[in-house]
Amino acid sequence: MAASWVPDVDPSSDFSLANIPFGIITTQDDPAPHAAVAIGSHVLDLKVLAANSDLTKLFPGIDGLAEIFSQSSLNAFAQLGRAVHRQVRGAIQDLLSTDTQHPEVLRDNAELRKKALLPQRAVKMHLPMEIGDYTDFYAGFHHARRVGGMFRGMDNALQPNYLHLPVGYHGRASSVVVSGTPVRRPVGQILLDKDPVPVTAPSRKLDFELELGCFIARPNDMGSAIPVDEADEGHIFGYVLLNDWSARDVQAWEYVPLGPFNGKNFATTISPWVVLADALEPFRARPLENQTQLQQYLGEIQPPLQQYLREKRRDGVFDIQLEVELTTAEGDTTTISRTSSTNLIWSFPQMIAHHTLGGCPLRTGDLLGSGTISGQGRLESGSLLEMSENGWRVVELKGMDARTFLKDGDTVTLRGFCGVDGGRVGFGACEGRVYEALQKVTD
Amino acid sequence: MAASWVPDVDPSSDFSLANIPFGIITTQDDPAPHAAVAIGSHVLDLKVLAANSDLTKLFPGIDGLAEIFSQSSLNAFAQLGRAVHRQVRGAIQDLLSTDTQHPEVLRDNAELRKKALLPQRAVKMHLPMEIGDYTDFYAGFHHARRVGGMFRGMDNALQPNYLHLPVGYHGRASSVVVSGTPVRRPVGQILLDKDPVPVTAPSRKLDFELELGCFIARPNDMGSAIPVDEADEGHIFGYVLLNDWSARDVQAWEYVPLGPFNGKNFATTISPWVVLADALEPFRARPLENQTQLQQYLGEIQPPLQQYLREKRRDGVFDIQLEVELTTAEGDTTTISRTSSTNLIWSFPQMIAHHTLGGCPLRTGDLLGSGTISGQGRLESGSLLEMSENGWRVVELKGMDARTFLKDGDTVTLRGFCGVDGGRVGFGACEGRVYEALQKVTD
Ligand SMILES: [Ca+2]
Ligand SMILES: [Ca+2]
Ligand SMILES: [Mg+2]
Ligand SMILES: [Mg+2]
Ligand code: NI
Repeated sequence: MAASWVPDVDPSSDFSLANIPFGIITTQDDPAPHAAVAIGSHVLDLKVLAANSDLTKLFPGIDGLAEIFSQSSLNAFAQLGRAVHRQVRGAIQDLLSTDTQHPEVLRDNAELRKKALLPQRAVKMHLPMEIGDYTDFYAGFHHARRVGGMFRGMDNALQPNYLHLPVGYHGRASSVVVSGTPVRRPVGQILLDKDPVPVTAPSRKLDFELELGCFIARPNDMGSAIPVDEADEGHIFGYVLLNDWSARDVQAWEYVPLGPFNGKNFATTISPWVVLADALEPFRARPLENQTQLQQYLGEIQPPLQQYLREKRRDGVFDIQLEVELTTAEGDTTTISRTSSTNLIWSFPQMIAHHTLGGCPLRTGDLLGSGTISGQGRLESGSLLEMSENGWRVVELKGMDARTFLKDGDTVTLRGFCGVDGGRVGFGACEGRVYEALQKVTD
Repeated sequence: MAASWVPDVDPSSDFSLANIPFGIITTQDDPAPHAAVAIGSHVLDLKVLAANSDLTKLFPGIDGLAEIFSQSSLNAFAQLGRAVHRQVRGAIQDLLSTDTQHPEVLRDNAELRKKALLPQRAVKMHLPMEIGDYTDFYAGFHHARRVGGMFRGMDNALQPNYLHLPVGYHGRASSVVVSGTPVRRPVGQILLDKDPVPVTAPSRKLDFELELGCFIARPNDMGSAIPVDEADEGHIFGYVLLNDWSARDVQAWEYVPLGPFNGKNFATTISPWVVLADALEPFRARPLENQTQLQQYLGEIQPPLQQYLREKRRDGVFDIQLEVELTTAEGDTTTISRTSSTNLIWSFPQMIAHHTLGGCPLRTGDLLGSGTISGQGRLESGSLLEMSENGWRVVELKGMDARTFLKDGDTVTLRGFCGVDGGRVGFGACEGRVYEALQKVTD
C-alpha cells in the first residue's frame, strides 16, 4: 500500500490507507449527521468533499453519491452493494495517496483540505447505520463451551444443537449505541443467595461481551434463503466491534424458556467506524474446525454439516487481534484479555445462511453479532463471567484493584486490528463507561 | 353511541361508530400509502379529507395533521400522544354521525363523499406502523401452563420466574406482515423421530399463535423506566390481532439456550386496523388473578408482586371475544377455537413496566405481542400445539377433514371484537394462507 500525504498518519494507527472505514459524523460547522472516512488521526468529510468537487470524476459511473453522503446513516451507501463499495474505497485510497492521480482535488487544494480534512477529536461520531433488526449469535466456541461447562458441567457443556447450527437470538435494536455513550447499570429482578423469591435491584453481575458485529448491505426477499456462498459478496457491508453488555444475574433468572431479555436489552455498544468487508479480505483465516469438535463431543456420531452451511471457501473468518481494556474510575487501565477472532466456529456467511433458511428477511443496516469471542485460556476470555468463573475468582487490575464483575465508574474498551504497522486495518475504540443505577431496591 | 350516516354500516360490523380504527391504505387514485379510518364496510381516506377540507376547523389546536395523514405509516400520528388521538377520534366520530356538527364537510358534500368514502374492498391495506422493534411476551397463563405441562409434566408446568415477571423475548421486526400476506412454510433444521442428528427440511409442525398486539405511541428515554401506572395513558397507541406463526419442530431443536429464532422469525401477521386504546376503554376487565396462582403453584410462598409491577387499577386487560378459523384449500371453514383476552396474567402496562425496568428504550411504532391467548379448555386454545397435544390428537374440521398442524393451502383467520351489535369495537380479520416450502430436503 502506498503512503498517504495526510499529516500525522501514525504507523500504529488503525486507520491506515489500507483501511478507509466509513462512519457518520457531525462537525462544528455542520450539525446534521453525514458520512466521512477515517485516515490516521483525521477524518475526510465526504459531504464537504461532495459539495466542493466533481464526484462524477472521482467515482465515475456511480450516481447520487453526493446525496448519499449527506444522509444521517450509511444505509443508502450500503444498499449500493459490494462492487460500488470497492470502487469508492479504491478511489478514496487513491485520493489520499502521495501519488494520487487527482492531486488537484485535495492534496494540492489547501482550501478544501482545511474544510474537508478534520482532526478526529474535532468531530462527533454517531451510529453509522439505521439498524432495523439486531441478531446476536453464539459462535464463539470457547465461550459457549466454558459458560456451558460452568452451569452444566464440562461433559454437557455444549447443547446438542450447538455444532449443527449457529445458535442465536433476536436482540434489541433500539438500545444499540455508539462508542462513548454512557451505560447505565440496569435495575432488574434478581435472586439473592439461595432465596427463591426475587428482589428488584441494580444488577450485581454487570458484564461485557467482546464480539464482532457485521452489517448487512443488500436485503433478501422474505421467503427466500441466502445461499452460504453468496452471503459475503452479496450481502455483507462491513464490520464493527460490539460490546453486548450483559447483566448476568438478571439473565440467569429470566432466561427460561424464551432466552435473554432485560439481561441484554439495556445497551449494546458498537465502534463507530464500519470497516468495509474488502478491507478485511487480506486477513482471512480458518474458523475452528467443526468436524473435529463433532468427533470430540459427539463420540461416534460424525454427521456432515447440513448442506446449506457448507462453504466452498475454508477461510470464512478473519484473524483480528482483539483486546479488552478495563479502566477504573481512578484512571488505571489494565488490558484484561487478548484473543483473536479466529476463535469462531461459524462464519458470518454461515450465520446469514442459517438466519434466512426459513425465509427471514434481512434488511440493509441489520446488525449481526458474532457471539462472545474467547480463546482457550482464562485470560483470553471475552467476558468477566468466564474470567471470574461467575464471581468466584478475582481478576486483578493495575492500582492494586480487582474485579469479579463491573463496578460503577469502570470503562470497558474493546480494540481490534489486523496487519502490521503502517498498514493496519483496525476498528478504533469501542468503549462505554458504567454509571450507577437510577433506581435503588424498591421491593 | 349515535348512528352514522355512512351507508351499509351492518350492525354486526367490527367497525361501528364506537370504534374508528386507523390504518394505512393505497387506492386506485393514490398509490402512495396514507392514512384512513374504517367505518362499517367503508374507509374514510384521511389524506383526501385533508386535501379537500379545513382540518384546523375539524381538529382545532392540532397542527400538521394534513402532512401526518399523508405519511406511509401512523408513527407520526402515534407520536402525538393519547390526548390528540382522543380528540381526533372524537372529531371523526362526530363527522360520521347522523347529527354531525359539520354536515357541510362530508355528510352533505356529495363530491367529497365520493372521493373520500371508499368501499373497503376497493383499497389495499398496508402495515399500519413502521416497527422498530417487536417483542413477544408469554402472558397467556393457560397457554404457558398447558405447553409447559406437555413438556415438563403438570407439576413443573410453569417455570419458577413465570408468576414473578412477564416473560418475553425479542422477536423479528422485519418479518411482521399485514393480514393477507402469503406465509411460506419455512425450511429448517428438525429432528425426525428419535434420530439425534437433524435434517434440513420443511417444517412438519407449522402452527399459529392467537395473540393481541400493542403499539407504542410515545417513547421513553434510554435508561429511564416507565412506571406501570403511566404506561397506558403515556405510551400505548392501540391494538391489533397478531398471529405469531411458529414452526414447532424447528423451535424445539434450536431454542436451547437462547430462545426461539428461526422457529418464529419467518412471519408474524397482524390485522391492518389499529384499534385505538380509547376505543377499548369501555371493555376493561380483570386479568387472571396472580396471587391465587402463586399460592397454588408455589405452595407456602406468597411473595407480593414486585413493586414496579403493581398496578393501581385492577382492570388492566380487555374482554375481547377471540376466534380462530381454519379454512382448507377446498374452502371449508371451521371455527376451531373461541376464547377471550381476559386469559392473560399480565397486562400490557405491566409488560411495558417490565420491558423498560432496566432502561430499555421503547420507540414509537414498537410492537408488543401478548403471548398466545388460550382459555382453560382444549377448544379454547390459541395454538394447534395445544389443541393437538403436540400432534397426538386430531382437530376435526368441516368437510370430514382433520389437522394436527397446518397443511399447505390452509388459511388461518383470527377475529376479535368487544361489545354488542350496533356498537362493536372489533379488529377485522387477521389472516394468512400457508404456501408450500420453496426448498425440499437438501441433506
Ligand atoms: Ca452476546
Ligand atoms: Ca408467541
Ligand atoms: Mg446487548
Ligand atoms: Mg412471529
Ligand atoms: Ni480519475
